[in-house]
Formats: sequence, C-alpha cells, structure tokens
Amino acid sequence: MTNIQSDNLKNWITSVFQSCGFSETNAQLSAEVLVDADLRGIDSHGVARLSGYVRLIKNGRINPDPEFKVSHRKKTMIHVDADQAIGLLSAPYAMNLAMEATAEYGSGWAGISNSNHFGIAAYHAMMALEKDFIGFSMTNASPLVTPSGGKQRMLGTNPICVAVPTQNEIPFVLDMATAAAANGKLEIAERLNKPIPAGWAITATGENTTDAKALKIGGILLPLGSNKNGGYHKGYGLSSWVDIFSGVITGANFGPWVPPFVSFLDPLANQPGKGIGHFVGCWDVDGFQDKETTKKNMDLWIQTFKNTVSIDIENPVLIPGEIEHHLSIDRKTNGIPLVDAVCKDIESLSIELNINSPL
Amino acid sequence: MTNIQSDNLKNWITSVFQSCGFSETNAQLSAEVLVDADLRGIDSHGVARLSGYVRLIKNGRINPDPEFKVSHRKKTMIHVDADQAIGLLSAPYAMNLAMEATAEYGSGWAGISNSNHFGIAAYHAMMALEKDFIGFSMTNASPLVTPSGGKQRMLGTNPICVAVPTQNEIPFVLDMATAAAANGKLEIAERLNKPIPAGWAITATGENTTDAKALKIGGILLPLGSNKNGGYHKGYGLSSWVDIFSGVITGANFGPWVPPFVSFLDPLANQPGKGIGHFVGCWDVDGFQDKETTKKNMDLWIQTFKNTVSIDIENPVLIPGEIEHHLSIDRKTNGIPLVDAVCKDIESLSIELNINSPL
Repeated sequence: MTNIQSDNLKNWITSVFQSCGFSETNAQLSAEVLVDADLRGIDSHGVARLSGYVRLIKNGRINPDPEFKVSHRKKTMIHVDADQAIGLLSAPYAMNLAMEATAEYGSGWAGISNSNHFGIAAYHAMMALEKDFIGFSMTNASPLVTPSGGKQRMLGTNPICVAVPTQNEIPFVLDMATAAAANGKLEIAERLNKPIPAGWAITATGENTTDAKALKIGGILLPLGSNKNGGYHKGYGLSSWVDIFSGVITGANFGPWVPPFVSFLDPLANQPGKGIGHFVGCWDVDGFQDKETTKKNMDLWIQTFKNTVSIDIENPVLIPGEIEHHLSIDRKTNGIPLVDAVCKDIESLSIELNINSPL
Repeated sequence: MTNIQSDNLKNWITSVFQSCGFSETNAQLSAEVLVDADLRGIDSHGVARLSGYVRLIKNGRINPDPEFKVSHRKKTMIHVDADQAIGLLSAPYAMNLAMEATAEYGSGWAGISNSNHFGIAAYHAMMALEKDFIGFSMTNASPLVTPSGGKQRMLGTNPICVAVPTQNEIPFVLDMATAAAANGKLEIAERLNKPIPAGWAITATGENTTDAKALKIGGILLPLGSNKNGGYHKGYGLSSWVDIFSGVITGANFGPWVPPFVSFLDPLANQPGKGIGHFVGCWDVDGFQDKETTKKNMDLWIQTFKNTVSIDIENPVLIPGEIEHHLSIDRKTNGIPLVDAVCKDIESLSIELNINSPL
C-alpha cells in the first residue's frame, strides 16, 4: 500500500490524458472525475481504471479530441452525441446542459449516446447540488449480469445515482450498482484469496458459486436480490430500466451490445446503437415548495434516520453517501492509499508514456 | 375462491365509494384504479383494500369530497395539495398535469402532499403510455421496513414504477416494492400456514425470522438485498429515495411519520408534513431521438431479453410487466378470482352500506 496526495495524483493523470491527445482542459476534468472516485473510496472507478482508458484510446475506441453534437429536441430534453468521447467528459458536459434547462424549466434531462465509461455516477449527479438541484445519473456498461432466471451476460452493473441537497447535513447521495455486488468486490476477494458470498455470481452453466474468480472463467453476476426469494427480479428490473434509459432511448447500444470495457474484446456485431449511453439530469428542489423548507426537512430526514435503533450499538445506521463523504475529507488531508497492483500500473504507464511517476 | 367479472366488481366498488360521499366521477375512477390492481394480479392492492379505505373515510382521515390545490411553481414542476383525498384520485389528477407539462416541455413532474394510499403505482405511470411518454410514479407508505443495520420501522414498502412505451411488444412496466418482499407476500404465506423465506423480516429485537406472522407481533420487513452480503443498503437507499421524493420535497410526511394505513392506529405526533406523499411524472420518448426509433428499439430490447438463455428451459426469462399484462387480459375475459377473506369483506361491506352484494 502506497499513499499519494490527491493533487499529485490529479496532476499525473492530467499528464497521462494529455500525452494521449486530450486538450489540457479535457485532461484536467477527466483527472478530476477519476480522482474524485479515489477520494470517495470507490477505488475500482478511480486511477485503477486509467490503464484501461489508455488502451481504449490507443486502439481508437475512445476519441481523445471529441466534438459533441447537441440537439435540443424538446425544451427539457437534450441529446448529446459524444463523438466517442470518454464518459468522464461527456457526462459533465451533458449535465451542464441539463442544469441550464432546469434553471429555466424546473427540470432538465440529457441523453448521451456514442460515449464510453463515465467513472462514478456520483460525480455527475452531485454537480447539481451546487445549484440546489436534485441530481440524477445512470449509465449502462459492459454485460456481466444475468436477468433473473437466466444464465447469460445481458446487463452491466448499471448504476443509479440520486443526489439531494440539504441545509446543514451532508447531502444524500445514493450511488448504487443494480447487481448484488459489483465486479470490483469480486476482485477484492480474489486479491485476499477469499471466497465470495453465495448470491453474487453463478457459473457459466448457471450453478451457484463462491469462487472470487467466477467472472474470469465465464461466470455471471446476479442482480440485486440474488435469488427468487430475495426478489432478484427487482434487481433485474432496475438494471433494465438503467439500460433502457442509457441505451434504448438515447440511441446508444443496450443489453449484450454494450461495448466491453476491456480493449482486447471487440464489441458484438450488428450494433443497434452507438457506443455506451448515459442518462443525466435534475429537478429543482424549489419546484414543489420553497427550497429552504425542503432543505430543512432533508436535515430532519437525515437526523431521524441516523437515530434509527441499530442492531449493533457500535454500528449506527448510515445515510447513503455518508461513508464516501467522510472518506473524501479524510483522503483530501491524508492522501489516497493505493494497492500494489495500481502502483505497478502507474509505474508502467509512466514509463510507457514517458512521464514522471508520481510515486 | 369465487370468481367475479371485472365490470361487476367495478360497479359495486363505485357504489361503495358513492355511499361514502364520493361524487360519481370520483367513485368511478377510484373503482377503476382498484380493479386494475385485481386485473393485473396485484391482489393485495385491489378490492382487498376497500374496507380499509372505508374505515379511513369514516374516521375522517380520507376526505370523500376533496378540492385539489394546484401551484405551478416551475414550468415542469407542479405541486398538488390533495386536501386529504384518496391517492386513487390525487395521483391520476396530478399525472394529468404532469402529462400536460410534458406535452409542452418534454418532461413534467407533480409532487403530491396531503394524500392517502394511491393503490398500484403502475396505474399512474401507465397513464403516460397512451401519449408515448415514459411514465414514472412513487409513493411512500406506512413504516414497516428498517434501514440496513437497523431494527426499527422507518420506511414503507415504497414502490418505484417506470413504464416505457413500445412499438408492437407489450410495454415495459417495472412496478416494484423496495422491500425484499411486500407485506402482502407474508399474508399469503400466513394464509397457507407456511413459513416465509429467511431475508424477508426480522423480529422486533432484530433476530432473523421465518414466521409469516412476524409483522403482527412487532416484526420488521427488510429492504431489498435482505442482508449485508446481499447489499441491503441498496434496498434501503432506494426506499429512502422514494421517501424523500414522496414526502420531503412535496411537503408530505416522511419516514416514521407517514400515517398508518389502518384506521385504528393514529398517526405519530409532531408531523413534519401533511398526509402521505406521491411523486409522478413523465419524459417524452421523442425527447432524445424520434419516437419511432425508440419504440422500435424497445421492441428489439424486449425480444432480445426474452431470448436470454434461461436456467430452466421451461421458465423463460420474463420482461417486467409481462406477467401482469397477460393476467390482465385473462382476467378481463375470465373474471377475477377472489379469496374467501375478500368475499367476506365484500359481503359485510354490502350489508353495512346497504348495497347489493355483487357475489
């Protein structure tokens, strides 16, 4: 484990993207979104992804210098063709358009096609908070999850994020994969040489498994709910919703056609859309009652739920986004811990791209 | 088990509501929403609820002759104070306002406070389909579910519904409680004298239980995900989102203050809002690309997912809303089966209100 200051990491990532052909502004924003994931403790979506992005730029699937094509089809519904951009750029760009529409109409939405992986959903949804809007973001992703009752990779871990502003409490930020567990959790178990809990994955032939390497040998993730009694048709339904909003209604790919994240796998043939899709937008919290009342009641909601009687007195009930908020403050001060595999990645990228290593 | 034609049931329910002081139009619409639940096989939310509604009208918690107060605070954000109406009326009313806004701006939203139980979420969201809009609906409900890590009733089974139009396939209709299992499922198990699966409920002291009567002896439902490994913080997060959108931002009650459905329990003191809240609205499917493309791709999405390799060859993968759609067609033709407890309810309500029984 090595520790790095977030600014050092951000500067280095900026250099990596610049050396891949990104403009300085685009490289800085992309680095900011990635480092925000590391700060919030979503380590699987931070600098750990960078070498994957570089591979996709090198093989032409990510366009380092995209031109977004925007069409305002309806007053609150804006379409962005991302020109094969990285989602780290297209999603904030689209979110800004949705926020402009929200300022004028009370809500606003952007559908993005022809994009790539967008990092953590929370970054984009949380942009809305500075305007006292409720932020919303979704993306589809490479197929790893089966529908309930199936044994085929049809859906990504397809996250949903909702961010709600507050008065004095930390904001409510729900950012969740719709699978029982995202693939990052299997990687952590594998690194620790531990089995995974039942209910996370099945084998390629549809048997339950606790093998942390399940995905690497053709296995499939299960939707939230894990099995019939657990209501995994609901996790499947949520993931489908994300896929439809990100892919079907935006003109991006959906289901099994969503392009794989790894550069060594080619996308399926006969794609019905373009690239990966995202759906972002916001509602004005001032829309139903004055915003001071709403924000004051959000504080009351949070205080009330924090005071839920907990099963274990040492472990109070948490508010969605609470852990990430505190980690973010801690890591801004004390640095971001990086596991050895990520450090190795950083060293080899530095050599490959002829940039000074930040470690 | 007794069978009844849906029109007979609808006419009888209309008479019941009229005899409680509803106008003919309001009684007919309320009956339609209830019978739609029975047709779609959501029996817990159909005529089985009627005696509960009658009790709430009799004790003054539901206003039989409400006047909705509407404020268009932002162009796409409309607030409805439902004047203690039954949600069966306030939600369709608000959905119509949201649809008008959507026709003009591409999306539209209504937040409803001071309301009561709104029946099945799908009825309201599916109203959008006739205009080729995507419908959305949520409601909070009497607290029965604990946050993850807690052992206290803080949240309702808080459903989320999304309905997406198609070209030729049946529409995609996700209508799901955010608990691992809604209370209706425990009632069914109790009636069959069967245990419930682990992961649905805990006792009042926080122990796992398989007792179908758990809720009746102070037990608590678990959020979708059921336990830590299953990711029940996600079910808690989803349910919280519904509570915040239905209650906090609309000026209705939230969390433990949401008024109980049963008339013999009084609402908690110091309520932060008015009544129960709902959140409904829509997006125009023509918003990001022409709607024919979207609807054609929805058909492709559905066909693709139906063809998922299934674990059991006899049980193909289903599309959200598929079972309910087929049941609805079947029951329109062949009648609605009613369990004995519901028939008894119908007989006693008929006597109490001096109406001819439909059975």
